[in-house]
Amino acid sequence: MKSYRKELWFHTRKRREFINITPLVEECVRESGVKEGLCLVNAMHITASVFINDDEPGLHNDFERWLEKLAPEKPYSQYEHNGFEDNADAHLKRTVMGREVVVAITDGKLDFGPWEQIFYGEFDGMRDKRVLVKIIGE
Amino acid sequence: MKSYRKELWFHTRKRREFINITPLVEECVRESGVKEGLCLVNAMHITASVFINDDEPGLHNDFERWLEKLAPEKPYSQYEHNGFEDNADAHLKRTVMGREVVVAITDGKLDFGPWEQIFYGEFDGMRDKRVLVKIIGE
Amino acid sequence: MKSYRKELWFHTRKRREFINITPLVEECVRESGVKEGLCLVNAMHITASVFINDDEPGLHNDFERWLEKLAPEKPYSQYEHNGFEDNADAHLKRTVMGREVVVAITDGKLDFGPWEQIFYGEFDGMRDKRVLVKIIGE
Repeated sequence: MKSYRKELWFHTRKRREFINITPLVEECVRESGVKEGLCLVNAMHITASVFINDDEPGLHNDFERWLEKLAPEKPYSQYEHNGFEDNADAHLKRTVMGREVVVAITDGKLDFGPWEQIFYGEFDGMRDKRVLVKIIGE
Repeated sequence: MKSYRKELWFHTRKRREFINITPLVEECVRESGVKEGLCLVNAMHITASVFINDDEPGLHNDFERWLEKLAPEKPYSQYEHNGFEDNADAHLKRTVMGREVVVAITDGKLDFGPWEQIFYGEFDGMRDKRVLVKIIGE
Repeated sequence: MKSYRKELWFHTRKRREFINITPLVEECVRESGVKEGLCLVNAMHITASVFINDDEPGLHNDFERWLEKLAPEKPYSQYEHNGFEDNADAHLKRTVMGREVVVAITDGKLDFGPWEQIFYGEFDGMRDKRVLVKIIGE
């Protein structure tokens, strides 16, 4: 069994941002040399998400508005967590979007359907944060 | 290490439908010959879900009503994604329900609690769509 | 390839409770002897969750209030599932929080970011319920 590990670092300019990380994960799969296996991609921070969906800007705007409706950023005082922080909403938004994805590797490639793309979802950005890629297989 | 891959195809009659795919996944596990390992089951489309819950029709109706409240289908114009499409709500509903499940395989079987069943959740159906089953182990 | 399996049992005093199970999972990783691999931790019941977030009591109160807003427990009659049961809300709450987490194992340890902790999320407690830990790797 082979295993592979890599950290991907991000520093967004805005509090909330979606970044298509598919090419970075594809490079990890190539570097790993794994032909058949599983690829775990997870946010290492609890106010960020890794998820799979469509690379379509209109949909990303819909996500932004929808998440603000489900778990609004302000007023900060509505959340107990916001004593010394202001990011309780980011914990909730990341919960809706999910921490991680597990993707099959088949024949040395991410085994994707027609429109699947992997995104880093940042909900409390403007600082260095990490994503973990872990691959096991043969 | 053994690996196994299979696509399961679905074509629902309605826009939204839940299908119990547990027997199909159990057959994959048997075919794989894997006794100890992990089984990934994921929607290959971004408007569908694979999730684990109870096979109880009342609960499925509750899911339908609840998802329509959290991410209503209509009016279509409320979503930016719906320029050439009408399925933005399906992207959001699938996000709530999740893209994938990872299930342990122990002693050649899906290692389930008492009521766990795997469902395909379709939110933009009436066309051919796929689920991926990938198994690794020994 | 090595594999490892353990059930963790819980019996909460309240209907809803969050329990930090990170030390228990760390012990599983040690017992497994796996140095590089994947660790699946999943609720075996469909009204409970395993998720990763911050071990901060204020945030946990925020989760409780937020989940009650998204999927209120009462009135019980609002859910079709509640014919002979009263736990439809628990099925919905667990869906938001997620059934499982997959965590990388690197160098014999859970490969975590700075604040990641694993929680058992109980939404229909006061009885014996289980979590499954399954580890594969080398």
